[in-house]
Amino acid sequence: VVTYDRQGGEDRVAKTEGIAAERGMTLIPPFDDPNIMAGQGTIGLEVVEQTQRHKRRPDAVLVPCGGGGLTSGIATAIKAHLPETEVYAVEPQGFDDTTRSFASGERERNQGPETGLCDALLAPQPGRLTFPINQALCAGGLVVGDDEVFAAMRAAFAQLKLVAEPGGAVALAAALSGKVDLKGRVAVIVMSGGNVDAKLYARAITEGA
Amino acid sequence: VVTYDRQGGEDRVAKTEGIAAERGMTLIPPFDDPNIMAGQGTIGLEVVEQTQRHKRRPDAVLVPCGGGGLTSGIATAIKAHLPETEVYAVEPQGFDDTTRSFASGERERNQGPETGLCDALLAPQPGRLTFPINQALCAGGLVVGDDEVFAAMRAAFAQLKLVAEPGGAVALAAALSGKVDLKGRVAVIVMSGGNVDAKLYARAITEGA
Repeated sequence: VVTYDRQGGEDRVAKTEGIAAERGMTLIPPFDDPNIMAGQGTIGLEVVEQTQRHKRRPDAVLVPCGGGGLTSGIATAIKAHLPETEVYAVEPQGFDDTTRSFASGERERNQGPETGLCDALLAPQPGRLTFPINQALCAGGLVVGDDEVFAAMRAAFAQLKLVAEPGGAVALAAALSGKVDLKGRVAVIVMSGGNVDAKLYARAITEGA
Repeated sequence: VVTYDRQGGEDRVAKTEGIAAERGMTLIPPFDDPNIMAGQGTIGLEVVEQTQRHKRRPDAVLVPCGGGGLTSGIATAIKAHLPETEVYAVEPQGFDDTTRSFASGERERNQGPETGLCDALLAPQPGRLTFPINQALCAGGLVVGDDEVFAAMRAAFAQLKLVAEPGGAVALAAALSGKVDLKGRVAVIVMSGGNVDAKLYARAITEGA
């Protein structure tokens, strides 16, 4: 593992590309790549299969969104099979670049330093490849605060017995805090990771934000 | 929910039977009942199905054991389909009544009081119905300490992203601490619950025992 100084403003993409070039390695980008998007889209296929098996049709699918790779892959798969199902991109407050880009129609950037509770979702702006897809397929963007993220992590701990990292819990946070009306509707929530520091997790489940 | 004074020596079984008689209710016992044992045994059927689907035959199945209902149900299902698979009853230190009963051939009691980290596994002695089955079908009993239980809860948190309560983690604890040699063997670990107080869980994942 090669670390970088996020707070100090070091550019992780430039640094990674430098290492790959120097050592002749293949770069696997985190989101703005057709194969990554397609691979993450298999989650959308699983949603289609599993809801069909339970004889349900999801009205809404909520997906944690950073650079938009996961969202674009899932939206592509969902919309191909279930064109009426709404797909929402869910972002943390301060990193709502995709939501703002939906509003303006252009790829907006986030302000300031790349730091925040949801450290899996801190891409500076929507991807070149991911944004047009999300713009065409998503019903909208939803934005959640840190307190809502912690509440979702607590709910996943207490009710689902699942460990969610902050960025992995934003879609559940949006559902639980009513960012979109799900009353009487069938909703699928994607929880996209559980890589969370034990001390932070302990704080989330005992104290909140 | 009707509470009782465990530390003060109140008998929960007597109290429950009293309430049931008084109100004309049906008592659903926690372990020493053929239907409960059969119902918990469906986990054993799932183990058989899922390991077959993955083209594996388990060499060992480790099960958390309190009164022995879960163990007897699972052992019955496993041994019916996979007679060569070993089933182990795993208990916390101080509540190793089943392990000691395997040795003596009689239903041994734990020494008082009914209190401990693994509060799901504090039955005072093996069941009348469960013990003969476990005696006939189990390969043996394994006993783990509180520090090993906490280490297993941490491993489930960090590696599996699953929330385990202390009593639910004893079988994983036995596997991780090498109470039975699983090297090169196929083992199934039953994690039997995640009902754990947030403060205790926070301590388990950050500090240990």
